[in-house]
Amino acid sequence: MGIHSWIQEYTERDWQTTTNGTVRFALIGLGWWTVDVAIPAIESSTLCETTVLVSGSKEKAERIADEHDIEHGLTYDEYHDGAATEAYDAVYIGTPNAYHFEHVKSAARFDKAALCEKPLEATAERAQRLVEAAEDADIPLMTAYRMQVDPAVRCARELIEDGFIGEPTHVYGNNSQSILEMIPDPDQWRLDPDVTGYGTSVMDLGIYTINTARFLLRRDPVAATAYMTSEHDGFEAVPDERAAFTLTFEGGVPLVSTASQNTQGDTQLKITGTEGQIDLDPAFHGKVILSLNRDDIHIDIENTSYSGDDEMEAVFDYFADRVLSGEEIYPDGHHALVDMETIHAIHEAAETGSSVDI
Amino acid sequence: MGIHSWIQEYTERDWQTTTNGTVRFALIGLGWWTVDVAIPAIESSTLCETTVLVSGSKEKAERIADEHDIEHGLTYDEYHDGAATEAYDAVYIGTPNAYHFEHVKSAARFDKAALCEKPLEATAERAQRLVEAAEDADIPLMTAYRMQVDPAVRCARELIEDGFIGEPTHVYGNNSQSILEMIPDPDQWRLDPDVTGYGTSVMDLGIYTINTARFLLRRDPVAATAYMTSEHDGFEAVPDERAAFTLTFEGGVPLVSTASQNTQGDTQLKITGTEGQIDLDPAFHGKVILSLNRDDIHIDIENTSYSGDDEMEAVFDYFADRVLSGEEIYPDGHHALVDMETIHAIHEAAETGSSVDI
Repeated sequence: MGIHSWIQEYTERDWQTTTNGTVRFALIGLGWWTVDVAIPAIESSTLCETTVLVSGSKEKAERIADEHDIEHGLTYDEYHDGAATEAYDAVYIGTPNAYHFEHVKSAARFDKAALCEKPLEATAERAQRLVEAAEDADIPLMTAYRMQVDPAVRCARELIEDGFIGEPTHVYGNNSQSILEMIPDPDQWRLDPDVTGYGTSVMDLGIYTINTARFLLRRDPVAATAYMTSEHDGFEAVPDERAAFTLTFEGGVPLVSTASQNTQGDTQLKITGTEGQIDLDPAFHGKVILSLNRDDIHIDIENTSYSGDDEMEAVFDYFADRVLSGEEIYPDGHHALVDMETIHAIHEAAETGSSVDI
Repeated sequence: MGIHSWIQEYTERDWQTTTNGTVRFALIGLGWWTVDVAIPAIESSTLCETTVLVSGSKEKAERIADEHDIEHGLTYDEYHDGAATEAYDAVYIGTPNAYHFEHVKSAARFDKAALCEKPLEATAERAQRLVEAAEDADIPLMTAYRMQVDPAVRCARELIEDGFIGEPTHVYGNNSQSILEMIPDPDQWRLDPDVTGYGTSVMDLGIYTINTARFLLRRDPVAATAYMTSEHDGFEAVPDERAAFTLTFEGGVPLVSTASQNTQGDTQLKITGTEGQIDLDPAFHGKVILSLNRDDIHIDIENTSYSGDDEMEAVFDYFADRVLSGEEIYPDGHHALVDMETIHAIHEAAETGSSVDI
């Protein structure tokens, strides 16, 4: 079998264990991602259905529910009060970071599975309490990282495991965008430290590099150094309009990374080893291009990857598959806590100018 | 004029001020770079001629001189004793780093111009003394960085100056190779701290990222953080078989970078700004591919750049042009000292785990 046909296998859902059953979702937080990406992803999915929408505004919840033929439109208060709990099996939490914990707490109280957007919470300490709340109630908890279901990323991971690049020696990652062009609102929550948490660029963008590198290398970071600065209007309240950080992974593999919410859009993740290199460019948003390089091989693979919507559909089906089968969840709460502790260490390293152990 | 024809201008030598005269060179140190690259580069040049070769071995110097129809083959001792000083106007120093100073000292004594390989010396302190020796004798001194004469790099620099990428926000650079595959000798000087200086990967490879970023951004680094490790046989004596470092440039622009002498070969330099991005990939060895990216423009330019040999030919002609005309040299001794101080700071930052001011 040639490498192209082998790679083609990664468009298949090798993680799927069941095709029977449906998980009914309450979607909490009706921002653009939930409305434009999550609702259509669930509509295309095989194991999921949306039965409840939850928003700060009753009118908005009911209007969008009507548009998509969804049974219930609730306020946050109604959700916390236990409205319509018979209508859903799981919650998807797409609210600002600092509200994840309270929504997981209610899901735990109602014995509902929880799929939570990344980062898991606003701080490592709150994320720890969120994980404990889910564990105490014994509900399934997953973080919606997406990269773990992307065929190009899964393919890269197996190639690294099989020794395609030899022994990994260093990693580079960038994730940058212009958030004020995407969402022209200076009062948006990602620029408000009370709601976003430690900051904006590492929390929202750098986390892709951190989490995907952990997935690809099958190991975790042990130390961080960092530099951050905020220079422009709109970024006064957060420390990291742009950030540069270095992580050291187990086994002495360094990762260098940049993240910025106020610059040209670009994503790249490049893993170099003693025998070769794997480059994902673009890496994180939309279709991934996977480049495999060794002295004797130079291949660019564009057609294994999902678009962003396909990815979210697979995230929902993966989570539903695990909820229905009771199988282990890969990016679970404890997995997400490592990212939160890493981001905390990155911010502390930037403040102190010194290396911080994770 | 379209962007392609504008870029095509960069194959021209816009720095050239004279086509009259010849600078006669003594080439000091007959390693593979001098023999395979520098001698042919001078043969193809318009303003240079090789008249003297200098080596540790009289037999080697005379043999290679004979092969290339060069007048004199000398030992280092003969060079220092003032042999054949009437036969050359300038020296090219291609010896291991820790011998640059003594060769510049003799050149200064004989009133010869000096073109010195990078890094300028083994340590910042020795490099400072080297620069002072050249200044005291008032001889022209240049460091042979190469990137300043590469048309793709010059083109990138003017695009950045003209605002093509908006305000620069962050920089990424990598330079890696497998030196024990290129030169299968565990006793080679680049792995011997007595001769190479602080280490091997940052001194020999990371310097390309540092120096080219300075050239492109027209500003200098002010602080460094770093991580280094040596894991494999052959790298016991140096701290940086692989290195990751972060520099902060004036104006709060971070650069993240990796460098390794023991991994897959790869070079890349990517400058991101608020409006666009310029990516040199490959960046440092041989032909550069220049990618220009904005929301509305995606262009890959392959044909502006020199090969490695063309670059060295241009370095010799640029230096000879400056020696003949008395015009200012861009990468002079003081310019090179900033790189030496930066590399010193990177090594200190790796040792202490803290940010070091430059």
